[in-house]
Amino acid sequence: MELLDKLNWRYAAKAMNGEKIPQEKIDTIIEAASLAPTSSGLQPFEILVITNPEIKKQIRSIAWDQSVVTDCSHLLVFAAWDNYTEERINKMFDHTNTVRGFKNEGWENYRQKLLGFYPHRDPEENFNHAAKQAYIAFSHAITAAAFEEVDSTPMEGFEPQALDEILNLKEKNLRSCLMLPLGYRDTENDWLAGLVKVRKSKEDLVTVIE
Amino acid sequence: MELLDKLNWRYAAKAMNGEKIPQEKIDTIIEAASLAPTSSGLQPFEILVITNPEIKKQIRSIAWDQSVVTDCSHLLVFAAWDNYTEERINKMFDHTNTVRGFKNEGWENYRQKLLGFYPHRDPEENFNHAAKQAYIAFSHAITAAAFEEVDSTPMEGFEPQALDEILNLKEKNLRSCLMLPLGYRDTENDWLAGLVKVRKSKEDLVTVIE
Repeated sequence: MELLDKLNWRYAAKAMNGEKIPQEKIDTIIEAASLAPTSSGLQPFEILVITNPEIKKQIRSIAWDQSVVTDCSHLLVFAAWDNYTEERINKMFDHTNTVRGFKNEGWENYRQKLLGFYPHRDPEENFNHAAKQAYIAFSHAITAAAFEEVDSTPMEGFEPQALDEILNLKEKNLRSCLMLPLGYRDTENDWLAGLVKVRKSKEDLVTVIE
Repeated sequence: MELLDKLNWRYAAKAMNGEKIPQEKIDTIIEAASLAPTSSGLQPFEILVITNPEIKKQIRSIAWDQSVVTDCSHLLVFAAWDNYTEERINKMFDHTNTVRGFKNEGWENYRQKLLGFYPHRDPEENFNHAAKQAYIAFSHAITAAAFEEVDSTPMEGFEPQALDEILNLKEKNLRSCLMLPLGYRDTENDWLAGLVKVRKSKEDLVTVIE
């Protein structure tokens, strides 16, 4: 199956060669991320697409000095909503009504349910929930990159608060949760490039209940 | 691009028709989930594959009575490690050494770094981190299902503690975090099947920093 071939081709590139990715490939990767399912369809995150060398350098300094941060072509940062607010929930429900061209009673009841729940919950819990939705989109972006024969490096290894400052995320009520450098593998300088992919056995992964 | 076609075809099925999915399709979906990248390659989750009608019925009762839970063919439950322990970390590092057939100093140093960090951190924080890795695999499973023309319903809407009890997850030191009913859409009875997919505008999703 083509998907499995792509997923097997993919690995977490540890060195990239600086080559530029064509814009249409970036657009496809972003589109795949956008198509990811999210809880209640709220898409509670934004994606920053960074090519500025100076900003990439600053980010590398708060990301364990990992070379892919500067040697990638495009650095994606996934930043989740710091909280679910009435305004954000209403905006997405209103947008849905606009796109679909009608109001639906069940949908409006569901809006009220969310309005009665999320904005009153602990913001940290809300952020964690929003971040999880970003992980789903992140995964879609990784898969799309593999289809475009673009390498990527899934990264949690950075100082989120420092990254938030570099990117002024606080004023947008966002908090960074993931980075995805996109580029092309530098096989010669990547210790991981030649190694076999390791996964736990299906016995350790799967339990069947028939 | 084929991937985008599949992601556009996919939607969160709200009604399924009970038809059985061939085993090879389930195997492919599981394989895709297994190939997902995870932090340090630990794959800190397991997947339960449930076809037992009685268990599905019990689960439906703690999942807002959603019909797809019983009308799906296979119900996947993603359950994350309740904590990162020395034993779990060592098992994955040892397994990696076995599969690759050699020991590597950098890798062994990295093992020590994780052993010095994770087991001493708050278990709840560790579980949340493990759960996020499950979201990446969950997303891969959703995409693979779409490639197999299998419908799926991404679901957080259930009582996790009750589900843990039904599936005896506590004794396996796991905690449920996601469900993914897999089956075939019952278009006539699904209010969502005919509706257009809604996503926020690229302006609201993406910020470019050049």
